[in-house]
Parts: sequence; C-alpha cells; structure tokens
Amino acid sequence: MAARLKTAVLGATGYSGLELTRLLAKHPRVDTPLQLRRDANGAKSEASSDGFPSVPWNGHSAAEPFSWAKLEQQDVKVLFLATPHEVSRELVPEAIARGLRVVDLSGAWRLKQDENRAVYGFKDADAAMAAKLTEQAVYGLPELNADRICSAALIANPGCYATSVILALAPLMSADFVDRSRGIISDSKSGVSGAGKEPTARTHFVTVANNLSAYSVFGHRHTGEILEQLKLEACQLIFTPHLLPIPRGILSTIYVSLNREMTAVEVESCFCDFYGGKRWVRVLPASNLPQIIFSLHTNYCDLGFCLADDGRRLVLVSCLDNLLKGAAGQAVQNMNLMYGWSEEEGLQ
Amino acid sequence: MAARLKTAVLGATGYSGLELTRLLAKHPRVDTPLQLRRDANGAKSEASSDGFPSVPWNGHSAAEPFSWAKLEQQDVKVLFLATPHEVSRELVPEAIARGLRVVDLSGAWRLKQDENRAVYGFKDADAAMAAKLTEQAVYGLPELNADRICSAALIANPGCYATSVILALAPLMSADFVDRSRGIISDSKSGVSGAGKEPTARTHFVTVANNLSAYSVFGHRHTGEILEQLKLEACQLIFTPHLLPIPRGILSTIYVSLNREMTAVEVESCFCDFYGGKRWVRVLPASNLPQIIFSLHTNYCDLGFCLADDGRRLVLVSCLDNLLKGAAGQAVQNMNLMYGWSEEEGLQ
Amino acid sequence: MAARLKTAVLGATGYSGLELTRLLAKHPRVDTPLQLRRDANGAKSEASSDGFPSVPWNGHSAAEPFSWAKLEQQDVKVLFLATPHEVSRELVPEAIARGLRVVDLSGAWRLKQDENRAVYGFKDADAAMAAKLTEQAVYGLPELNADRICSAALIANPGCYATSVILALAPLMSADFVDRSRGIISDSKSGVSGAGKEPTARTHFVTVANNLSAYSVFGHRHTGEILEQLKLEACQLIFTPHLLPIPRGILSTIYVSLNREMTAVEVESCFCDFYGGKRWVRVLPASNLPQIIFSLHTNYCDLGFCLADDGRRLVLVSCLDNLLKGAAGQAVQNMNLMYGWSEEEGLQ
Amino acid sequence: MAARLKTAVLGATGYSGLELTRLLAKHPRVDTPLQLRRDANGAKSEASSDGFPSVPWNGHSAAEPFSWAKLEQQDVKVLFLATPHEVSRELVPEAIARGLRVVDLSGAWRLKQDENRAVYGFKDADAAMAAKLTEQAVYGLPELNADRICSAALIANPGCYATSVILALAPLMSADFVDRSRGIISDSKSGVSGAGKEPTARTHFVTVANNLSAYSVFGHRHTGEILEQLKLEACQLIFTPHLLPIPRGILSTIYVSLNREMTAVEVESCFCDFYGGKRWVRVLPASNLPQIIFSLHTNYCDLGFCLADDGRRLVLVSCLDNLLKGAAGQAVQNMNLMYGWSEEEGLQ
Repeated sequence: MAARLKTAVLGATGYSGLELTRLLAKHPRVDTPLQLRRDANGAKSEASSDGFPSVPWNGHSAAEPFSWAKLEQQDVKVLFLATPHEVSRELVPEAIARGLRVVDLSGAWRLKQDENRAVYGFKDADAAMAAKLTEQAVYGLPELNADRICSAALIANPGCYATSVILALAPLMSADFVDRSRGIISDSKSGVSGAGKEPTARTHFVTVANNLSAYSVFGHRHTGEILEQLKLEACQLIFTPHLLPIPRGILSTIYVSLNREMTAVEVESCFCDFYGGKRWVRVLPASNLPQIIFSLHTNYCDLGFCLADDGRRLVLVSCLDNLLKGAAGQAVQNMNLMYGWSEEEGLQ
Repeated sequence: MAARLKTAVLGATGYSGLELTRLLAKHPRVDTPLQLRRDANGAKSEASSDGFPSVPWNGHSAAEPFSWAKLEQQDVKVLFLATPHEVSRELVPEAIARGLRVVDLSGAWRLKQDENRAVYGFKDADAAMAAKLTEQAVYGLPELNADRICSAALIANPGCYATSVILALAPLMSADFVDRSRGIISDSKSGVSGAGKEPTARTHFVTVANNLSAYSVFGHRHTGEILEQLKLEACQLIFTPHLLPIPRGILSTIYVSLNREMTAVEVESCFCDFYGGKRWVRVLPASNLPQIIFSLHTNYCDLGFCLADDGRRLVLVSCLDNLLKGAAGQAVQNMNLMYGWSEEEGLQ
Repeated sequence: MAARLKTAVLGATGYSGLELTRLLAKHPRVDTPLQLRRDANGAKSEASSDGFPSVPWNGHSAAEPFSWAKLEQQDVKVLFLATPHEVSRELVPEAIARGLRVVDLSGAWRLKQDENRAVYGFKDADAAMAAKLTEQAVYGLPELNADRICSAALIANPGCYATSVILALAPLMSADFVDRSRGIISDSKSGVSGAGKEPTARTHFVTVANNLSAYSVFGHRHTGEILEQLKLEACQLIFTPHLLPIPRGILSTIYVSLNREMTAVEVESCFCDFYGGKRWVRVLPASNLPQIIFSLHTNYCDLGFCLADDGRRLVLVSCLDNLLKGAAGQAVQNMNLMYGWSEEEGLQ
Repeated sequence: MAARLKTAVLGATGYSGLELTRLLAKHPRVDTPLQLRRDANGAKSEASSDGFPSVPWNGHSAAEPFSWAKLEQQDVKVLFLATPHEVSRELVPEAIARGLRVVDLSGAWRLKQDENRAVYGFKDADAAMAAKLTEQAVYGLPELNADRICSAALIANPGCYATSVILALAPLMSADFVDRSRGIISDSKSGVSGAGKEPTARTHFVTVANNLSAYSVFGHRHTGEILEQLKLEACQLIFTPHLLPIPRGILSTIYVSLNREMTAVEVESCFCDFYGGKRWVRVLPASNLPQIIFSLHTNYCDLGFCLADDGRRLVLVSCLDNLLKGAAGQAVQNMNLMYGWSEEEGLQ
C-alpha cells in the first residue's frame, strides 16, 4: 500500500475541526492528522478540552501550538483550516507559498466579488492579495466544480447554509427552468453547532430550547456565496436563516417560480440527470421530502420537492448535516478529489 | 357581584381542552367549567388521565360523559367544543337549536367556500345544514371581527397557523400595500402539541427530537382560512407548515412583495395603526423580530418585520402560543367579547 | 384598599430576578418593583437585555443602577437580592442597618456552621459580621419555619436543590422514622436555568442537548443546607446533582432506610399529617410519583414515594420548578408570611 | 478472503433491529443481513417504513415476512431476534433444533431463576422448555462471559440498563470490595428509544420534552439480570429507572459502600485491572465522570467514580448508548466472539 497522506488540522478544537479530525483519523489513505491550535488561544483551548469530545481519554490528543516548522518536519501536504476567516487570511498566503495544498473551512476565499467579500472584513490594503488568492481559490462544492477541485492548491470550502441552497437550486438554474424575475426565497433552519462553540447569550441552552428565531435577515454572510455560484443578482434572492433547538442539521425550504409549466416527472428528471452518479446527493421521488434526521451523521445532501397544481410554483426541501456535508465531510470529499481518490473514501 | 357564567368544555382531555379548562377555571367571571367527554372515548380518556396534567390530584376532575340533559341541568350558557370537526358537525346544530352559544375550536365552520370546506369531510348530504351554519358562524379572530363576535351564536375559533398568518398580513392587505400578483409565502413552523395528543409515529419523541420536517405542502387545511379571511386566490399563497422539536409555539416567516417602494417607518405605522389599542397583538420596532419564547404561555401574537433595501421586499415574522392565542386563549378572548367583558379578562 | 408595599429587586436581569420581578408585578398587594442592577455590571446587563424576556416591549423596564438613596426615595420596605453571594454579603449589613427587610436569594446567610459557610468564601475577617447576621437570618423555608419568617428582618431564601430534598425528608426525619446510620442518598437532577444565565461551555446548547452529566459529587454547596436543616452529619448524606437537558425543573430521587418496618399507609399519613393545610406542597398517593412537568410554572413542591415489600426501604421523589418554589416563588411566599398575608397571594 | 457469514435479523424495523441491520450491513465479515418481520405485523411494519431510517431510498430494503424456508434457502447461520420476548420464546426452540446460532435481544432467556423469569410471562407449561434453553443460553456480556459466548448456540443479549449497571459493579464485586449488607442503589436514566418504537402516551413528544420521570420503582424487569449476574439478593439492590428527554443514551449513578477504607488509586486499579485489554469499556481517571454524549453512537461503556473522603462511600457513573452497547452493538460483539473474530470488527 502507498504511504499515507500527511495532513494537519488547525483549529482542531472547534466543532468542525473536531469532526474533521475524527474523519481524517479513520480515513484509509490518510495518517492521523496533526492537531494544531493558534498559540493565542492556548488557554481557551485548554478550557474547552474539558468538554466532549476532545477529552484525551476519548481518543483525541490535545492540539499542539501551530508552527510552520512543525508542518515541514512532519512532511504535511494538506493543511485544513478550521479557523476564523481572519486567521485564514493571515496564514494562507504563506501556506501556498510553501507549496502546501490548503482546504479552508472559513469564508475567507469563497467570494470573487469585492462587495460580497466585504462581510469578511477585507480592507483596501488586502485588495491585491485577496484578488490573487481569490482568483486561485476554487469553491469546493464537488458536485459543481469537481474538475477544478482536482488540481486546486486552495479550496474555499463552502458554507453550510450555502451548500444546502446551492445544491437544491443548481439543477434547475443550470437547465434555465427558473423565473429569476419572480425571486427565489430560501427559508433555512440550522442547528446550534452552526453558530460555533463560543458560549454566548445566543447559544445558551435556556435561550435556544423550546424556541425558534430568525436572524440576519437580508444580511447573512452566506448570501454572497449563493448569489455568485448561481449567478443571481442580489434582488433575486431572499435568504432567511433561523436558529433551531437542535445541535446539528440544516433544512432549507426553497421557493421557486418556474419559467414554464412543468410536470413533477420533468422536475424529478432534471434533478436525477444532474446528480446521476453523484455519491453524496440523494434525490427523493416527487412529493417526498427529506427530514433533518435522514442525513444526520452522514455526508449526504438530501433533496425533495413538491410542485403546485399549476406546474409553476415549486417548493424544494434540502437537508444536510452542517458539520459533515456542510463542513468537515465536504472538506474530506474535496481532499479525495484533489488526490484522485473515490469521493466516498473515509466518508461511509 | 353578578352570578358567574356557566360553561362546559367538551373534549376537556386534549391539549386545547385542558388549556381551556385551566383558563376558564381561573376566569373571574366564569364558574369552574363542566368538563365533558364523548362516551365513545371513555376508555381512551381514562387512559390519558394517567398523563399530565389531567391527573386528579393536579386540580383536574375527570371529564364526565356528555349529555344535553347535563348541560340544561347545570344551566350552561356557552359550550366550548375542543373536539374533532366530525363531532362538532354532529352536535352544533342541536346546540344552536337549544339556544346555547357555541365556541367551536375545530375547523368545521371556519370556511364559507365549499371547495375549501371539503377538507373537513362535508358531504353533499350536509350541504344545506353546512351552508346555514356556516352562514351564521363568525370567524372568531377578535382583532378583525370583534363587532360580529359580540352577537354571535356560533364562533368558529380560528386555526393556530391561520391566526399567525392572518394577523401578520391583515394590516398590509387592508391598506392594499401587497402586490398579490407576485405571490405571498408563509413558511410556518409549529411545536408538536399542534398535532394533537394522539400518540402516532409522527409525534413519537424519537421521531421529533433533533429533527425538522415540512409536511402538507400545497395541501394543509388551514390554507383555506387564510385565503378566505384575506380574500386571496389559491394561486396567490403558498403555505408550508413544518414540525418543530418543541412542545408548543408557532413562528411564521412570511414573504411579501409590496405594491410600491415603502420605508420601514411607513410599514411600522401601518401595523401600529391597525393594531393600536389591541390588547393581544404586539408590534415590534422595525428590524426587531419576535422569537417563539417571547409569547409562550401568553395570549399574545407578536409581529415584527425586516424590509429590504429596495423598499419592496418584506419579511414578516409572527409568533404565538398555538394552545393560547392559537386555540384556548383566543376562545376565551371570543367569550369575553360575546359577553361585553374586557378582552383581557382571565388571560393576563 | 391599603397602600401597596414597595419593593426592589437587585439583580433583576438574571433568571431568578426576572421571574421574581414578574411575580411581584402581578402581586395584588405589591407595587411594581423597582428593578435594580449593580453599576459594575452595567455593560453586561445591557447586553443581556437583548434576550428574552427582559426586552422592553415585553413588559420589562431596564434595570436601573442600585443606590441606597433610590431605595429611600421610593420608600422601599423589602429588598430582594437576586445577586451573587458576594454582593449579598457586601450589601446586607447596611440594608439591615437602614431598617429594610431583606429576602436574599443567594447562599450567603443560609448556613450557621462555619465549615459549611466556607463554600461561600467567608473569610476570617468576616467572621464577626457573618456570625451576627447568620444568627439573625431565618432560613426561609415556609413549610418548616413559618413562625420565625413572620418576624424576620433577613430571610435566607433556600437553594433550589435543598428545597426539593429538605421538603421530601422533613416529615420522616421529624417523626424519627429514618435510620440515619444507613445513610440517605439524594440523586437530584436539575434543568439548566439552575446554572445561571452566564454563557459558559457547560451551558452551551450543544453541550447540554442529548446529554446528562453528574457534577460536584461530594462537594455541592447546597449540601450544607440540607445537613443543617435536617440535623444530619456529613457522613449521613450523599447528594449528587445532575444537569438535565431541559430549561427548568428539578427532580430529586431520594433513598432512605426506615427505622422499622412500615406500611405505605403509615408513610403516606406521615406526609399528609406534616403537610396538612400547607398550600404549596402536594403529597401524591402511595406509589404515585410526580414528574417535573407537573409542577413546572407553579410554586408547588410535589412529593411521592414507593415503599419496598420489606417495608424498610423507601424511594422518595420530589419535584419543583427551580425558578419558582426553588427561588422566586419561595421568596414571594416568604414575603407573604412576613406581612401576614395568605401564602398563596400572587402565586396562583 | 473467506466467504462472508450469512445472517438474518427478525424485527428489523424496531430501533434495535434497524441499528443492528445497519451494523451488520457494514461489517466486513458478514453479508448484508436478511431483514425479516413477523407476518402478523405486516401492516404495522409497512406504516413504520414511512419513518426514518427505514425508508427504501435511505438504503434499507423493506423487511420480508419470516419463514424457516427462507433462512434455509439463504444458508443463514446466525439469527438475530430483535423481537418481543413472546416471539423469541416461540421461535428459539425450533431455531436451535435447526442448528442455527441465535442472538436474542429480548429478555426471554436472560434469567436462570424462575421467580425472576416470571416477569417475561413464562408459565408452568413452559417450564421444561424454559429450563432447558435457559440452561443452554449464555448471558451475552462479553466482558464477563467471553469464554462461554465463543461456543454458545444461544446468546441472551443483555438488557441496556443491566449492561450499564453490571459493568460498573462487576470489578468491585469480583474483588469482594462491596459491603452488600448496606445495599447498592442504581439510579439510572435512559433516553426514549429504550421504550421502543410503539407510539404511546409515554413516548409522545409533548409528554417527554422538558420532563423527567421515574418509573417501575422496585419492579423493573432488568433488576433480575443484575441480581443474577452479580449474585446479589433482591434486598441488596434498589434499581430506579428514569425517562430522560433525549432520544438515546443511558447514565447510571450507582451508590456503593465499601467493605473497608480504600484510596481512589486502589479503586481505579481495581477497575483498570478488571478491564485491562477490554476493547469496549473505558475507565476514566478518579473523580472524572463520563457523560452520555461521550459514548453516544459508539459501542463503549464509560465508567467513572468519585470516592468520599471517608474512603468508604463510592459513587459510580456508567454511560452507554442503549442501542449499541446496550443492544445492537453488543449483539455484534457477541457474534464476533462466536466466530473468533476481533471484538471490534464492524464496531469502530
């Protein structure tokens, strides 16, 4: 058997980083990943190691402080960044310069358009670097961009909400069945792990339990990704996220007007044709809708739809696990493509 | 002090019936209500009395079998029906004939149009009776129909989802600010008590916990109420209910296109003018959205909105407690109007 | 009608403080309470006012900074402290000196024995003051200490866990039916609001949901209260708290060996005799056990038991709402006694 | 590679059956199992296939009606029974007679003593058969009975609660460190899947959410297993189960008095010695306690303890996933032993 790939995960103590570490540790073609943390967060990381599942006896080693020397010494080839976008922005230029391939789970390099990128705090001084790396970066949605992912040095791993919305809309958009002039609405709902591990008033159990709330209406950072990937204008999409009282999982209910009267069979065909042979998207029969628990703890994105009697109004439902297909699982799927392996390696 | 009103609750062991019994028992102008059940359900009722909160020591007497004689003997003036619509359809004609005033929490009399009413199983043989009683019945949404409620003999207490959607849309529809041609979407989410007390695969804890699912897309029974009350055509509304992993509460996220460019101040004024002086609707300032726990265990319907930069696209959020403003609380509010009492009596 | 009592709540933004403010605002003999906060916490309080239910439109005014002048000016007679014990320790001496009656929800004055009190950080320098105020303070468990509560200047409002355990054991201990030599075990479980409003890794939704954990075994601060009130030695009690994935409510399962063989009828009589006429304790029939939701949102403590066939081994179950009978409700019950009012005023 | 083992799962639509089917389908030495159901339950099974995760598109084939012919034709060697004990009692004699090896997840054959076995409805007429098969049956707790499991024809797969309690106590009992005369208490808490897939008032979401309840005090069926495996007398154990508002997972808090004063190091050694080399038990360092989510979705049983200052009173905490180590995972672990494979095959 060939030597196993050496990888490192920076930010291994967050929810996505832990999930990614767990996946890589089981991956048949990859060595146990180097688990790293930024020095600055040392104290905090220590504290968070009290909790599940990073306690040492639970099979997780404590994350070590990050250094380029360590990466070189261990012959690391792929660096996964499960860090805030500020950290990604700081480290990626050097990582690329050193010849590492990078899969960045933050939003730093997902957006080509300056006005969208502003939400990640890019300033004028960053413009040249941002432009260059954004140019290089490939939006890591394997079902859409597999060809470019294969040879990419820098993968911008998509946002969890964005993945659920883009995968639901791509087949219809690609076939030009959508009447953009009537607007597309995605009413999306996510579990709390999507808000990160930082304890805040918003993530306190007593605030979330028995509750539901909408937030960031007309202003969520994932909106830009959806617009760019689907070539929509801002006025053609409303994206409304909600915080669900569950730990993980996303369900997006998406409302679309069709260009012409269609039958349910035609719509189903459109999806099945587009995703035929794709390992990690499941299309349900017409009028069957996925639920969050169907794809929980898997790398699947599940898609279903209901078509109105008039054949023009379509309700799409898209479900996935925000820590897997919406983050760590997709990162592994991208790595698989980058090394010419089957997309399902390490994800079954 | 005047003698207290005599009331009876049929179906006192369901979620709405229990909540209603509890409210009436505390109401300062009403005697402890007679708690009744259909004979046929005797065994089942007995079984359900094992559970909370109908156990006798918890302040609930066991429901007695229903009979007209008992109502007469106890001088009951108002009969609340927290029963399936089939039972309501069977009993209401005689109740009205006997001079009782009826508040029916089922869907039996909410719909004027035959095509909408069909979902409640009205058959041709029922047509004459249905037409007559539906004619008489007043849709019991106090914020819209207070005048007619005051003198009504038969109140069709609104559906929980319908209340949340109609109250959110009524001010804008009434002021003719909505572009109906672009369609209205209500993406609504409800806690499990809305599905009733019957144990089913859908209401099993393991099915609901950690999950979210859409259901009855393009076919939920409350759609007709919304259409009729807001004078919308079927093609102008999509109503999508979802089952939340919480026991109670509804949040509806509603998407509307405006007829003309408006400012947030104008929209807020529209709501405040419409609901000025209304005790049980709270309008939040622009860009502040209600959450389910704000109105839980209260009779409030909370309304908030966000307006897009273009001044044309509006996201409304409406929250209420499905067992109170969505059922039992609204029934008490209706009774208060019927007897000329303050709308807040027994509901604080 | 007599003039209403003037009260103030310091710490009105925490869970207990909010609940207490809500209760006092509805209390028929009390004016809307003055809502106060420590200056030092200004910024934090502001932040927490984003959350439910302290948002202004939800009927809560913002808490004002604390000052003695304000209390005097408003003629406040009773000061409720819903503050950390450090704050209580700092303010109570002056409050008493100024002639205020104080109901302190913290643990500062609950414990007579120095070794128990140490957990609240009393130092040698505090000894004289602590001894004096502790002497004066009455442990505010109305079912045990009503006589002394009536005339008290300083009420040490009991801990939530302690209330559930002491009320379950007091009748048997008082009748000397318990074999202390065999040890008493209280396996107690609490909802997350008992851990306070501060966002921490422990209270993060993702940590608590789908989970259960024991904590502070052999070392929880409420242990001393139970020992002192029941005159037990430390070696005679094991108290094990657990964190439940629910927002509120406590269930204690308590294991006791009896001195002699008893019948279920005798045990039930022991409880019913002890709590006969007590408004806020409900004793269930033998072999019927309370559940948390029975007493949620009420001021009840519910008690039930199962007796082994040998008539010697007894399992007691005690339930209450930690924010009501375990905190704010009990504080109001104490105030009612202090002013000679019915124990149920403002708590129905 | 050797031919894969042929297996069948009867009762493949229940929670344990589904989990078992999922595990066997991934097991590297086993063919996709034959999924069977009793004819009588046909309609019910069909209905339940609407739900997660047995929907066909989710990778589950519909269960086929059971017949001996089918087993023979498919050359099935191991029959897993995830059925009620009545069905197991009916089928096992013939299965054994036909030379099949059986792993029975029901309680039918777990108990050697007639008085314990009575809870499973064995009648006088069954006595001879019961005695014979019970004699043959091996209690399938691999950490205690590996030798006999290897060669067994009939495995009585342990109860979920019983597994958590026996594994926690076995090391101390085996070393004779426990003072049985002072009694052992297990206060155990389980998620709702332990109550089965049948929708009942007890398993309704609204009954379970925000709640906790004790049940079957002094009378739960798993008590007999614990007594027999640990050679305790009935009067030496109190076992109190509670229903937690979570879908899966068990935590048992166990109270033990020691025969003599011990140190934490001695206690930890006792556990580590006993479970040294055991793949599926994890012993935490002294004063570190497991939580339910640590072992969720794994086959681990996690054990921790706190020792009182007096060195005599011990609190043990034991956690496992009731559907894995408490049911399906343990069944696979037993199969692994029966075929001489590593205990971890198919369970990582």
